[in-house]
Order: sequence, then structure tokens, then C-alpha cells
Amino acid sequence: MELWFTEEHTKDVRFTIRVDEQIESVQSDFQKIDVFQTPEFGKVLVIDGYIMLTEKDEFVYHEMITHVPMSVNPNIKKILVIGAGDGGTVRELTRYNTVERIDMVEIDKMVVDVCVDHIPQTACKLSHEKVNLYFEDGLKFVKTKENEYDLIIVDSTDPVGPGMELFTVDFYENCFKALKEDGILVNQHESPYYAREAAAMQRAHEKIKKVFPVAKVYQAHIPTYGSGHWLFGFASKKYDPINHMDEEAWNKLLIKTKYYNSALHKGAFALPNYVLEMLEQNI
Amino acid sequence: MELWFTEEHTKDVRFTIRVDEQIESVQSDFQKIDVFQTPEFGKVLVIDGYIMLTEKDEFVYHEMITHVPMSVNPNIKKILVIGAGDGGTVRELTRYNTVERIDMVEIDKMVVDVCVDHIPQTACKLSHEKVNLYFEDGLKFVKTKENEYDLIIVDSTDPVGPGMELFTVDFYENCFKALKEDGILVNQHESPYYAREAAAMQRAHEKIKKVFPVAKVYQAHIPTYGSGHWLFGFASKKYDPINHMDEEAWNKLLIKTKYYNSALHKGAFALPNYVLEMLEQNI
Repeated sequence: MELWFTEEHTKDVRFTIRVDEQIESVQSDFQKIDVFQTPEFGKVLVIDGYIMLTEKDEFVYHEMITHVPMSVNPNIKKILVIGAGDGGTVRELTRYNTVERIDMVEIDKMVVDVCVDHIPQTACKLSHEKVNLYFEDGLKFVKTKENEYDLIIVDSTDPVGPGMELFTVDFYENCFKALKEDGILVNQHESPYYAREAAAMQRAHEKIKKVFPVAKVYQAHIPTYGSGHWLFGFASKKYDPINHMDEEAWNKLLIKTKYYNSALHKGAFALPNYVLEMLEQNI
Repeated sequence: MELWFTEEHTKDVRFTIRVDEQIESVQSDFQKIDVFQTPEFGKVLVIDGYIMLTEKDEFVYHEMITHVPMSVNPNIKKILVIGAGDGGTVRELTRYNTVERIDMVEIDKMVVDVCVDHIPQTACKLSHEKVNLYFEDGLKFVKTKENEYDLIIVDSTDPVGPGMELFTVDFYENCFKALKEDGILVNQHESPYYAREAAAMQRAHEKIKKVFPVAKVYQAHIPTYGSGHWLFGFASKKYDPINHMDEEAWNKLLIKTKYYNSALHKGAFALPNYVLEMLEQNI
């Protein structure tokens, strides 16, 4: 028997992977959640038809969304994570002894349940003593907070369905308010290559730079996301992601990584001209 | 009617693109050559079932294989290009007034003929006055040369079929001999993500570093190559690709690029840990 899962990158481009077994398939109040066992990528989490993570390359995404801000401010103690139901972001953050508290707000408890059941590679630290899980709307949660967090990580799905409101000016303004005076906001920032994600990237950057005095974008190679060229946003009230990065302090922590390193941290902010031009455009 | 072209990235992973029309399909003495018109990528050149270029993203590959060495030594005058039948590499090199002569050695004349007929976007400068085309075996051609070139660019297919001999120690040694005392060798260096290309990458690097005192690897985002994470090799007799880069001289040339810029040049050499580890392994 042959079983194949196909993701449409655009209506004219398809990425198809061989599946050994469909391990899970549930419909939550918010979205369709599937887990596949595959020969090339190990377990694959799919939400509403889009690959959210694979065991083979989730380390790229999770290292880049966490270690970049953590190495800019080694005094980060209190963190808010929005989305991130698979647990990979929290897993990386719990590697820092200096972190005191991680509040994680995921709107869809079923994503967490599925990952705890089937993908311990990412979900392994969700019950860590420093982690507080809230199954709530991220926008509403952040609205109630003021001057509270050193770092907010927005580890969201695309700006459709439940992820949509995490790409609004209202949301970014509430993040600004919820952050301390030296706070940092990092978000998954879509991709510059295919038209739909490129438009989302431009809209997100336009909004974030209206709210935060520092608003930069950095890139990584994530082969199982459409085009493999994925971006993250680094916004902050005062820190520059390169000038303020404390390379020496970070390297002293001896955190072993598979993708991230200090040279790559700096290199990741060097974007291609066509991406820079898209980010500068007013749309 | 629906027409789709599928490339197998591995036996378990497929990349499929919608095709408006198969413009060309010929079998040369060496390989099968196809050109498709597609809605997402414009024209696509396929050799033996693998995408060689698309009009949408060929600029990434061709800018990165040329402008990186050209900005390290602004005095490059005589260049040997091996492979590169589509003409994109030559197109970028003819933008330098300082370049005096480009010898291009492509084993398969039919690739050039097909691209001249159908893909002027890359083939447009193949009849430039500085360009000399040789339809010969690249390894044999380079064997006859000594102390002649400032730069050799190996723009080859994968190490199967006619591209195979361009990944041997014998070939790299002959390139070393054909280069002047400050010569640079740049080659397409496969990809670290899927097993087959990763093994080719490791083997190529192991061989090149035996022959050249400087042997570095740099990366780019090329969405239509398997995994989108593609590498290039920079080897030289004396120049370091970052310490010797002449950013000011290059920027004075006012060459407009869509991907390459001086910050990205430096950033591209900052590789992920897992790639660094693979390159250091003796296989």
C-alpha cells in the first residue's frame, strides 16, 4: 500500500511525503489536527492541511525562535509564549536555568493533548515546574498584562483561522504594554517566496514597526515549510539583536544546539535584497 | 486538463508543480533535457528529472556563485566556467567591465541550444564578445591549463551522469594547477538536508580541502532545489572569503542584485551547527 500526504504550497505547487501511518486525526473546536508517521521526517504534525513540525527539522524553528532573543538579553526571567502547542519552544526555554517562569497560552488544548500523546520530542517539557499552561485566547490574555514580561514569543500558525488575530496592530500594541521596559517580542514571520506568505510577512512587519522602536527580521532554512525560506521577527523596546547580543555569556551556558550558533545568529539578520525591498514597501 | 511535473527529492518526498506546457523535450548524448512553462515559476529547465533552474529563483543561484568570488578579488580578469549550459553564470560575470575573458566549457551543446532557444533570461549573454564557448569534457579541458585563470566556477549537475567527474580529487587538482597563484575555485556544493546530497556535500568538501589551503562553504535559499537549503564551496590558494572581501570596491561597481549584498555575503558563511559537523566528519 502507498499512502501519501500532500500540502499545497500554492494552488500550483505541491509537497508530498510518504506516510507509514496516520497516527491521529481529530477535529478540535478550532482546527483539524493530524499526526503522521513518515519514513523521511519521523512524526509530522499537520494542522488544517499545513505541516506545523516534523521530527526531522523542528529543531531549526525552535532553536531560532528562542536562542536569538535569549542571547540578546541573558537576564530574561519571565516569558510569555503564545501558541506553541507542540511544546518545542518551551522545551528550548527550559534549558535556561536563569528563566524563572514561562506562561504559555495556547487557544487549542487539543493540540497540546495530541502532542503530549504522540510527539514527546517536542512536548517533553510542557509539565516542567516553571511552565504554566493557559488554554485561552492569546490576545485576551495579553490584554490583561502590563510591564510583566522580559520576552514574548509568538509561535503562531499562519494568519488564518485562530492565528489571524495574532497578526493585528491591536495584538502587537498589547504585547508592547505587557513587556517590561527592555522587553523583546519574537514572532514567526512567514516567508518571502510564495505570494500569500510574502503578503502576510509584509503586513506583519508594517504593523510591528509602527509599535516597536526596534523591528528586525531574520531568516532560517526550514525545509518542510513552504519554500524552505522562513522568517522570524525580532522587535524590542531597546535592544538591537546584533549590537546587544551577549555572545560570551551565551556560550558560557554550554547549551548544545543543532542549528543555532553565535555566528549564524548574526548571519541570519543579513537578508537578500528582494526580501529587504519587500519589507521596506508600504502595502 | 491538468499537467503536473514531479521531482523526487527522495524516494519518500516529492515536489510537484503545475505545468502549462512542455515546451521542449530532447534526449542528448548525455542526458534528457526538458523545458516546462509553469504558472508559479515561469520557465523551468529539467535535466534527467531534476530541476536545474526556474525563471522565478535562478537569480539566487547565479548571483551567489558569481558575486561572492568577484567581490573577494576585484582584479579577476580571466575566468573558466565549467558546466553552466543555461548561461546564467556567464550572464552575471559579463556585468563586470573588469573581466577580460570567460571560457565556458559545457560538455553538452544541446543544453546550450535549448536554453538559447527557450530561456533567454539566462542564455542572453552566451554570445557576448568576452565569452568563448567550448563543447568539451570539463576535466580534459582543465588538464591542459596551467597558471591561467583567476577564477574557476564549477556550475555542475549533481555527481551522477556527466557531472560525476567534476567531484573528483583529480579534477580539483587540475583546477588548482589551472589557477594562478591567487586563484579561486567556486563550486555548487549540494545540500546538507537529504541523505544523498548530504553525502555528496561531505565527499566534495573532504576532497577540496585536501587540495586547497582555503576551503569554506556558504549557503543560500533556493526554494526549487531539494530542501531549499543549498551550498556552494569557496576554495582558494590564498584569499579568505570574508577577510579579503573588498566590500567598498564591489559596492562602487553599482551592480544591482536581487539576492546578493555584502552583509549577506558574510552571513552566508555562517553555517548551522549540524552542517559544520557534517563538513568536519571524515567519511
